[in-house]
Amino acid sequence: MRMYDIIKNKRDGGKLSPEEIKFFVEGYTAGDIPDYQAAALCMAIFYKGMDADETTALTLAIRDSGDTLNMDFGGLRVDKHSTGGVGDKTSMVVAPIAASCGIKVAKISGRGLGHTGGTVYKLEAIEGYRTDLSAEEFADVVRKVGVSMIGQSGDFAPADKKLYALRDVTATVDSMPLIVSSIMGKKLAANDDCIVLDVKVGSGSFMKTQKDAEELARRMVSVGHNAGKKVRALITNMDRPLGLAVGNSLEVCEAIETLKGGGPEDFRTLCLELSAHMLCLAEKGSVDECRKMAEEAISSGRALDTFAKMVELQGGDPRWIYEPERFPKAKYSLEVHAPEKGYIFRVDTEKYGEVSLLLGAGRSTKEDKIDNTAGFVLAKKTGEMALKGDLIATLYTTDKPEALEQAAELMLSSTGFWKEAPEQMPLILDVIE
Amino acid sequence: MRMYDIIKNKRDGGKLSPEEIKFFVEGYTAGDIPDYQAAALCMAIFYKGMDADETTALTLAIRDSGDTLNMDFGGLRVDKHSTGGVGDKTSMVVAPIAASCGIKVAKISGRGLGHTGGTVYKLEAIEGYRTDLSAEEFADVVRKVGVSMIGQSGDFAPADKKLYALRDVTATVDSMPLIVSSIMGKKLAANDDCIVLDVKVGSGSFMKTQKDAEELARRMVSVGHNAGKKVRALITNMDRPLGLAVGNSLEVCEAIETLKGGGPEDFRTLCLELSAHMLCLAEKGSVDECRKMAEEAISSGRALDTFAKMVELQGGDPRWIYEPERFPKAKYSLEVHAPEKGYIFRVDTEKYGEVSLLLGAGRSTKEDKIDNTAGFVLAKKTGEMALKGDLIATLYTTDKPEALEQAAELMLSSTGFWKEAPEQMPLILDVIE
Repeated sequence: MRMYDIIKNKRDGGKLSPEEIKFFVEGYTAGDIPDYQAAALCMAIFYKGMDADETTALTLAIRDSGDTLNMDFGGLRVDKHSTGGVGDKTSMVVAPIAASCGIKVAKISGRGLGHTGGTVYKLEAIEGYRTDLSAEEFADVVRKVGVSMIGQSGDFAPADKKLYALRDVTATVDSMPLIVSSIMGKKLAANDDCIVLDVKVGSGSFMKTQKDAEELARRMVSVGHNAGKKVRALITNMDRPLGLAVGNSLEVCEAIETLKGGGPEDFRTLCLELSAHMLCLAEKGSVDECRKMAEEAISSGRALDTFAKMVELQGGDPRWIYEPERFPKAKYSLEVHAPEKGYIFRVDTEKYGEVSLLLGAGRSTKEDKIDNTAGFVLAKKTGEMALKGDLIATLYTTDKPEALEQAAELMLSSTGFWKEAPEQMPLILDVIE
Repeated sequence: MRMYDIIKNKRDGGKLSPEEIKFFVEGYTAGDIPDYQAAALCMAIFYKGMDADETTALTLAIRDSGDTLNMDFGGLRVDKHSTGGVGDKTSMVVAPIAASCGIKVAKISGRGLGHTGGTVYKLEAIEGYRTDLSAEEFADVVRKVGVSMIGQSGDFAPADKKLYALRDVTATVDSMPLIVSSIMGKKLAANDDCIVLDVKVGSGSFMKTQKDAEELARRMVSVGHNAGKKVRALITNMDRPLGLAVGNSLEVCEAIETLKGGGPEDFRTLCLELSAHMLCLAEKGSVDECRKMAEEAISSGRALDTFAKMVELQGGDPRWIYEPERFPKAKYSLEVHAPEKGYIFRVDTEKYGEVSLLLGAGRSTKEDKIDNTAGFVLAKKTGEMALKGDLIATLYTTDKPEALEQAAELMLSSTGFWKEAPEQMPLILDVIE
């Protein structure tokens, strides 16, 4: 088998066999196939696509390129995976809910760059919280409290790391089968029994249209089924930040508030829906029954206790969870006010993500230091009316006070005002299974 | 400027600016742009193409990536360039004809692999003939006799060398703008005033259909004009070997025979046509007038004398030219006979090229030694009738007698017999300027 023939086959619109795909992924991971041939193949796939069989074969080859999580966690494992969005702190809420309802959530998160950050960074805002547990410690926490969330340590899906880095510099990221196999290859290496996918659509996410998001969701669900997993996808709205808080400490606090029964309505609703589908996939009942279980997990305080217990077992102080005022506050802040009267018609959510980056809340390069206090809290959400001078948001930072003005300008220039109220997209657009 | 944006622009069907193309070619040649980004761009070009402006910009950037030939050769320089074919020894005839009619031909040929070889290899069959003249010696021979033919020494179009090697392993060779810029980039580095292109079409050439060959010719002519050169292209038939002889010594002898007024009809006709167009481009008269001049250059013996003089100045023995029986003969030969009665309906010219390779006439790898005596001479050409047992061809070799049987088999399996005579394509299919 020669890589040249594989490239030519795909270039001419042919279907790659599972053997050809395995040959490519194994050879590329081992360094036997050079970057330039992989780049040519990725570009050919960009144009010619891949059908369900090819996408499944690519996903499984990526999964099998490294470690898989095969330990006994003492019960059925369910996970939720989001395609990423600004202000998405759902994991910190849905995982404790699901665990407190009797299913296991053993969550390993990557460390992203850019404005979507990652759950690990948020959790590390809790002083002492260890995201680097050993495999045994990890399984132990899951067995005891039903949930543990750590950073990636093992060598999961190394083929994806290498391929993604290559796609990132060769303009071959935006290819549906490559996106599907990248997400699902990593996800399947975690070896959960059930997976709920939260596919975001809108200005703050990778998929800009509902059509694309549904196509992505359908393909991921299909690949998951082909790999023998229970999978369901929710298409959710990301044309505005989720909740009100963006930034590590600020988001943990909003998650705690939600676990206590409060929190912004859109965020609480999404958490309950995702939890309900996780429980439903684990055969705890119908979606409606499971939604009630999730609500009860919050109102009884069990979900909050579960979260606090996990934090404690991983080295954090559980009092921070019950008394979130213990989180350090930003040294500097700046209020952003409405420059005119009008409805907040639309926001460029991606730019809002950049606002939080400017303030020091995330990393643009691997070397950047993260300011856990940095970020912003919205006072008005998309669709609400503001009078001239009304507070729209408060920006926070400790390390970058010099960026406050620029961040405020960027936020305002990314916010569209209009005399009429916009039509609101529903939060949950579709469920695909 | 970032290579990523250039790839993305072309990926999405955009038009690259001359600056972007220059940035790519310079960066890639210097090693600042990695192979994988170049490979992704080539694949995007494969699908999205390039318009005339882009192709011209790419060609000029390739030309400017290395040396150009800027010496004074004492007159208007005209060259002929062929896209390559089996048995194509026209350069050895047309260059002396043109030179003996008062124009300068300073010809630098590359050293090809595979069945089309190169003019340098053929000339090196003349004992003592030096293809490695210094720049000064080269110009001196051109000034004195009007013609010199040497191998490539300077660093001409290094971008093309690097790009071609990459395209060769990433399935991006078959792209019209990349082919055009590769051929014309090298050609323009030689800096001739006028160029006659001989674009081959048929089983023995790169372009399999007349439509493709005309498209290639039109694009090359257009790029040549944009670069300020006089350019004309002939579309010529290569669905059979040109002339009767294939192999280095055998081809030199056939060229000499033609310079003496003999030679196979198709070959003599093509040489006269190409010479006529070269002289015409150099404003020596109409094509008809120039064809007569070319005929006269042969009948008077001036073209042969010019060739002999050039050989002498480059270290060869001119007596070999006047008495070609001095060329060493092959030690072994094998006659190939018609297995049945019929017309030679079609031949796979490319396979005929492989026959000569098998016998030792060319190189498959850079290390292969060339057997100058090896090759074959046809006794019947496509369209002719053969009775069962008639001689079709004689195979020659000195170094590889063990390959004779296999070569004979390959030749027969690449020759189609049929009860009716085939329709013959004319030799010259079109002239494009």
